[in-house]
Amino acid sequence: MITMTLDGYVAGPNDGVENPLGDGGERIHEWLYADEAWRAQHGLEGGERTVDSEVMQHTIERTGAVILGRRMYDNAHGWGDDPPFRVPVFVLTHRPEEPLAKNDTTFTFVTEEPARTLELARDAAGGKDVQLAGGASVIQQFMRVGLLDELVVNLSPILLGGGVPLFGSLGAAIRLDPVEVVGSPRVTHIRYQVSEAA
Amino acid sequence: MITMTLDGYVAGPNDGVENPLGDGGERIHEWLYADEAWRAQHGLEGGERTVDSEVMQHTIERTGAVILGRRMYDNAHGWGDDPPFRVPVFVLTHRPEEPLAKNDTTFTFVTEEPARTLELARDAAGGKDVQLAGGASVIQQFMRVGLLDELVVNLSPILLGGGVPLFGSLGAAIRLDPVEVVGSPRVTHIRYQVSEAA
Repeated sequence: MITMTLDGYVAGPNDGVENPLGDGGERIHEWLYADEAWRAQHGLEGGERTVDSEVMQHTIERTGAVILGRRMYDNAHGWGDDPPFRVPVFVLTHRPEEPLAKNDTTFTFVTEEPARTLELARDAAGGKDVQLAGGASVIQQFMRVGLLDELVVNLSPILLGGGVPLFGSLGAAIRLDPVEVVGSPRVTHIRYQVSEAA
Repeated sequence: MITMTLDGYVAGPNDGVENPLGDGGERIHEWLYADEAWRAQHGLEGGERTVDSEVMQHTIERTGAVILGRRMYDNAHGWGDDPPFRVPVFVLTHRPEEPLAKNDTTFTFVTEEPARTLELARDAAGGKDVQLAGGASVIQQFMRVGLLDELVVNLSPILLGGGVPLFGSLGAAIRLDPVEVVGSPRVTHIRYQVSEAA
């Protein structure tokens, strides 16, 4: 599950440790900030219960482990003292590092290939799904080698005009079949089955 | 109403008169070719009646005039002898040319600004909607000056990895509010209300 702007970006231009979502990028996730399920996951009270909450909640419940990239981890400053995942998280990196536990989330730093990382995450997921949280380059990397079965795009109705594209040069090798669409006034959730193009 | 790939393109790379939809671009419109409403509009029999047909049919019925860009007109070779529009079409161009009637479609070549072109199209539309058919640069031009009220994106579940982006550098000046979503196994139709960003 990843949020993308209607013009295809997951972060604005100039993203980095000082500017995690890039210029204007906080707008991409605006639909989340008022959402009850997202707030609860982030230890915040209140928020609205909408159709978006149900989609979020459904994903949270199905997720037994998370894989994400080092750049995303660094940009988010490791999500501070209380990361929202509350499941084992595997961070793809070139620099080996000791595992790190923060509240209900453990971060394991993995220097393995995607296939091996997915095995480790599957073993830790207790029969639930492994969620690929991003960033874009990690998602592309997994899609290229056929390791992503499903992609949920939360299509945010904003335009950034530039930034980090979700799909980059991925192109025609991938086949996507829309299997579910849920819309709200804030965002459009599209679930795709992912396979290799014939 | 315009069809865009999930990675944001309305045509593949290297589009032109010899290659109207660009490299791989015919895949963008694959969802249409089997569709009853589209086939009927193009004088072809058969096809499937799906939820996509209903969306198409609804748009066709609402449309009283069409505006499109010269590049699109040229790339399509003027749609041959039996253009599918069957309503007055206004072609934005820098080169004045005599009006052209082909079967039920008339092409008027307009060298005016977008606002004036829209007035001409409205007068010709007999109380129905004016549809901006594209290409991308014409849609961007109208959006920039606040002349587009509604945008229907048919989101085609394919990736091209490059080509002609629908939104280009349009960015944050535009506000889009999703007001309707209809999904099928082939394509996701999202209707946005368009306004200027606050």
